[in-house]
Amino acid sequence: MAPEGRRGRRAEFAWAAFALLWMASCRGQGPGEGTRPYEAFARDLLARGLRSEGAYAVLERLTSQAGPRLTGSPAAETAVRLMRAEMEELGLETWLEPVTVQHWIREDEAAAVILPGKGRPETRLSIASLGWSVPTPSDGLRSGVVELKSFEELAERRAEVPGKTVFFNRPMDRTSLDTFRSYGEAAQFRARGATEAARAGAVAVLVRSATQRVDDFPHTGMVSYGPDAPRIPAAALSTQGAERLAAALKADPELEIRLSFNPQTLPDVLSSNVIGQIRGTERPDEIVLLGAHLDSWDLGTGAHDDGAGCAQVVEALKLLLESGLRPKRTVRGVLFMNEEFGASGGRDYARAERRSSERHIAAMESDRGGFLPVGFGVGGKRRALARIRRWDYLLALAGVRWVGPGGGGADIGPIVERGAVPMGFIPDAQRYFDVHHSALDILSSVHPRELELGAVLLAVMAAVVAEEGI
Amino acid sequence: MAPEGRRGRRAEFAWAAFALLWMASCRGQGPGEGTRPYEAFARDLLARGLRSEGAYAVLERLTSQAGPRLTGSPAAETAVRLMRAEMEELGLETWLEPVTVQHWIREDEAAAVILPGKGRPETRLSIASLGWSVPTPSDGLRSGVVELKSFEELAERRAEVPGKTVFFNRPMDRTSLDTFRSYGEAAQFRARGATEAARAGAVAVLVRSATQRVDDFPHTGMVSYGPDAPRIPAAALSTQGAERLAAALKADPELEIRLSFNPQTLPDVLSSNVIGQIRGTERPDEIVLLGAHLDSWDLGTGAHDDGAGCAQVVEALKLLLESGLRPKRTVRGVLFMNEEFGASGGRDYARAERRSSERHIAAMESDRGGFLPVGFGVGGKRRALARIRRWDYLLALAGVRWVGPGGGGADIGPIVERGAVPMGFIPDAQRYFDVHHSALDILSSVHPRELELGAVLLAVMAAVVAEEGI
Repeated sequence: MAPEGRRGRRAEFAWAAFALLWMASCRGQGPGEGTRPYEAFARDLLARGLRSEGAYAVLERLTSQAGPRLTGSPAAETAVRLMRAEMEELGLETWLEPVTVQHWIREDEAAAVILPGKGRPETRLSIASLGWSVPTPSDGLRSGVVELKSFEELAERRAEVPGKTVFFNRPMDRTSLDTFRSYGEAAQFRARGATEAARAGAVAVLVRSATQRVDDFPHTGMVSYGPDAPRIPAAALSTQGAERLAAALKADPELEIRLSFNPQTLPDVLSSNVIGQIRGTERPDEIVLLGAHLDSWDLGTGAHDDGAGCAQVVEALKLLLESGLRPKRTVRGVLFMNEEFGASGGRDYARAERRSSERHIAAMESDRGGFLPVGFGVGGKRRALARIRRWDYLLALAGVRWVGPGGGGADIGPIVERGAVPMGFIPDAQRYFDVHHSALDILSSVHPRELELGAVLLAVMAAVVAEEGI
Repeated sequence: MAPEGRRGRRAEFAWAAFALLWMASCRGQGPGEGTRPYEAFARDLLARGLRSEGAYAVLERLTSQAGPRLTGSPAAETAVRLMRAEMEELGLETWLEPVTVQHWIREDEAAAVILPGKGRPETRLSIASLGWSVPTPSDGLRSGVVELKSFEELAERRAEVPGKTVFFNRPMDRTSLDTFRSYGEAAQFRARGATEAARAGAVAVLVRSATQRVDDFPHTGMVSYGPDAPRIPAAALSTQGAERLAAALKADPELEIRLSFNPQTLPDVLSSNVIGQIRGTERPDEIVLLGAHLDSWDLGTGAHDDGAGCAQVVEALKLLLESGLRPKRTVRGVLFMNEEFGASGGRDYARAERRSSERHIAAMESDRGGFLPVGFGVGGKRRALARIRRWDYLLALAGVRWVGPGGGGADIGPIVERGAVPMGFIPDAQRYFDVHHSALDILSSVHPRELELGAVLLAVMAAVVAEEGI
C-alpha cells in the first residue's frame, strides 16, 4: 500500500489512543480499573469493530488475492506474503517461521458416471477427490458398487466387496444442535473408509459428503490411508449425487460406474507460519497467542475455513493497536500453515528454537467458521475457567452468554501441551457444514458483522489476559 | 393435499404419541415430572424439528404459492387460504376471523434520476415508494435537492427547503449489537420525514434505506403523514443510490432530480386473521397464543418478515400435535393480517366477540426474522420471568442462554393489554436489516436450521406454559 495510507492509519491510531487516554483520565482510572474493569475499553472495541467491519475487508483481500490456498501451493505462498504485508502495514513486529508441508494437488477435474444400462442413460455424478487420494488409472476405473451405511454393515457384507467400489452413504445427522459432533460421525467414513474398504478388497471408495444439505456440491477433506491396506482412489460425492446413485442401485444393484481422477502427491516443500505481535511492556516473553490457519481447501476460497480466523486474528491485533492499550504481556498472532494436511504448522511452531525462551500463558484458536459467537470456552485447570468467568460481562457485550469448559484446536494443540491455557469463542455452527470444504466456502457465505464480533472478542480477551494474567 | 397424505400423517402422529407414552411409562412419569421436567419432551421436539426442517417447508410453500402478500392484495387472500389449509391438514381446529385492512398498491415501477448537467450524465437511482405514499404527478416531479442528516439540520436549514425534495441521508448505525435499536433511529426519517419536510415546504422526500449494507436495493416501509401537513410523495433510496446522490450534490448543489411513481390508496377491504388451535383438555378457555403476521411487503416475498414467524407457528403446532402431549390449556396459533399497514389484525382479534369468553394467559409473537434464537424475553410481572427462568435448561437445549425482560410485539400488543404475559424467543438480528422490507427478503435468505430452532422453542414453551400455567 501507499505510504500515504500508512501515515493516515498511524494518525488514526494516535487519535484513538488519545481518545482512550482522555476517557480514562476523565474517570481518573485506567481501562482495567473501576467496578467493571475493561468495560469502556470493550465497548470502544466493539463499536469500532462493527463500524469498520475490518475483518471482512482483510478476508476479502485474502480470498480474492490469494484465492484457494492448498498447503504447498503457490497460492499458499501468496497468502503468506499478503498476510505478512497486512501485519507489517499495521505496524506489528512480524516474521515468518519455517514449516515443512505436504504437497498434494488435484490435477484434473474428477469425473464419476453411472454407466448406461437397463434403460438408464449415462448419469454424471458430482465428486471431488479426497486429499491424499491416489489417482485412478488414467483411463478410469470401472466397477460395480456396494452401498453401505456403516462399518458394521461393511463387516457383514464383506463378501460382496472385492473388486467393487464401496459407497458409504451415511447422511450427516441433522438432529443435534452440535453440528461438529454430527460432522465427526459423518467424517469418519471419509477418513477411515478407504482403508476399511480396501481391507475388504474394494478397488475405490465414494463417500457421501459430510453436509446436512442436499445439493450438488461435493465436500472434500482428508482420507487417511492405514499402513497395512492398499491405497485405493477415494472421492467425496455430492449429497444429491449420493441420493441419485442410491436410487439407481435400488433399481439395478448390478449397475457399474466409472471413476476418473488424477490427483498427485509431490515432494514436501518448505512453507511458513506468519507471525505478528504486539510486544508486552513488562513481560514480553509471556505470550497470549491468537491462532488460525492460512491454508485452505481448494474447491472454494476457504472463506470460513479458515480465512475467517486469519482475518479475525489480524483485525483483533489492529483493534488492539488502535485502542492504545499496551498490555504487560505480548499478544501474538500466528497464522499457521498446513492445518488441513496434518497440522505441521502447529507442531513446527511449538518445536521452534525460539520457543525455548518464551512462555505461552494462553492460546486462542479461531477455526470453527466466521459465524456469530455464542459461547466462550476455557480449557486447562478449573481455576482458569473461574478466572475468565469474572469477565463474563465483557463477553456479554458482544452477545456471548455462555462460558464453560472448551477452547483448543488442532494448531494450538502442541503449545497447549506445553502449558498454555486453551480458550476462545465458540461460534454458532448451524450453517457451517453447508459450505465447509466445498466450492460454497467463499466470501459471500460470510457475514461482516458476525465475523467482526469474533475479532472483537479475540481482541478484548487477549488484552485482558495479557494485562491481568490467567 | 391427498387424503392418503392425511392418513399417513395421522399414522405418524399416532406412532409418535405412542412412542412418547412408552418412554414416559418406562420412566414411570409424565413429561412434566422428574428432576428435569419436560427435558425428554423438549429433546424429542428438538430432534424431530431439526430432522424434518418442517418450518422451512411451510415457508417454501407460503413464499412460492402466495408470494409477496401486501395487505389487501389478492396474494394476501391466497396466503389466508393456504395457511388455513395447512393448519386444517394437520388436524387443528381452524377458523378465520374478519379484519378490516387498508389497501395501498404500488402501481408502477418507481423511477428517480439525477438530471444531466455540468458534464454529468443522467443517473438513475434505485428507489421504492413508501407504503401510504401519495403518487407524484403523472409526468414526474422535478426539483432541486436538500440533503439532511437529522431533523435538527432540517430546522436549521428550513429556508432552503421550499420547492425542493428533502433527502434524508442518515446512515443506519452499525456500532451497536442491538440492530433493532439502530433500525429504530434510522426508520424515524422514513416514518416522520415526509411530514417534517412538508411542513418546511418540501415537495417530496427521499429517505436513505434503513440497512447497514451498501448496495442497490431500496428498503421500503410505512410513511406516516401527520394531519396538519401536505401529503408529499415519499420514497426510499438504496444506500448506493444515497451515496451517489450525495456525491453528485457535493459536486453540484444546484442539481435537479426527477421522481416518478404512482402508488394508489384504494378503499379498505375485508380480510382475515387465520387461527388454528389445539384445544386444552382441562381449561380450554385459557389460551397460550402463538402469533406472527401473514401480510408482508411487496418487494421480496416476506420470507423473514414475517413468513418465518408464520411458518414457525404452524410448525410449532405440528410438533406439539406429533408429540402426543395434550396440555390442560389451549395452544392457539394466530396468523395476523395487516401488521405492516397499522396492525389492525391484532386490534380486531383482541376486540372480537369470541374473546369475551376466553382468557389469554400468555402470548408469544415471532416477528424479528427467522434467525438463530439467542435469548428469551418475558414481560408482565416479575413473577412471570422468575417462573420461566425455572425452565432455562429447556431453552439451553435449543442454544438459548439468556432469559430476561422482553417479549411482546405489534400484533399481540392488544391482547397483552388485556392481561396476557408477553414472552418469546429473541433471534439474533445481525443479518436482519440486510434484507428487511427489500427485494432480498426471500426464501434463500432464511436458513432451515435457524428457522426450525425458533419453531421448537415456541412449541416447547407453549406446551410448558399451557400445562403448568404462568
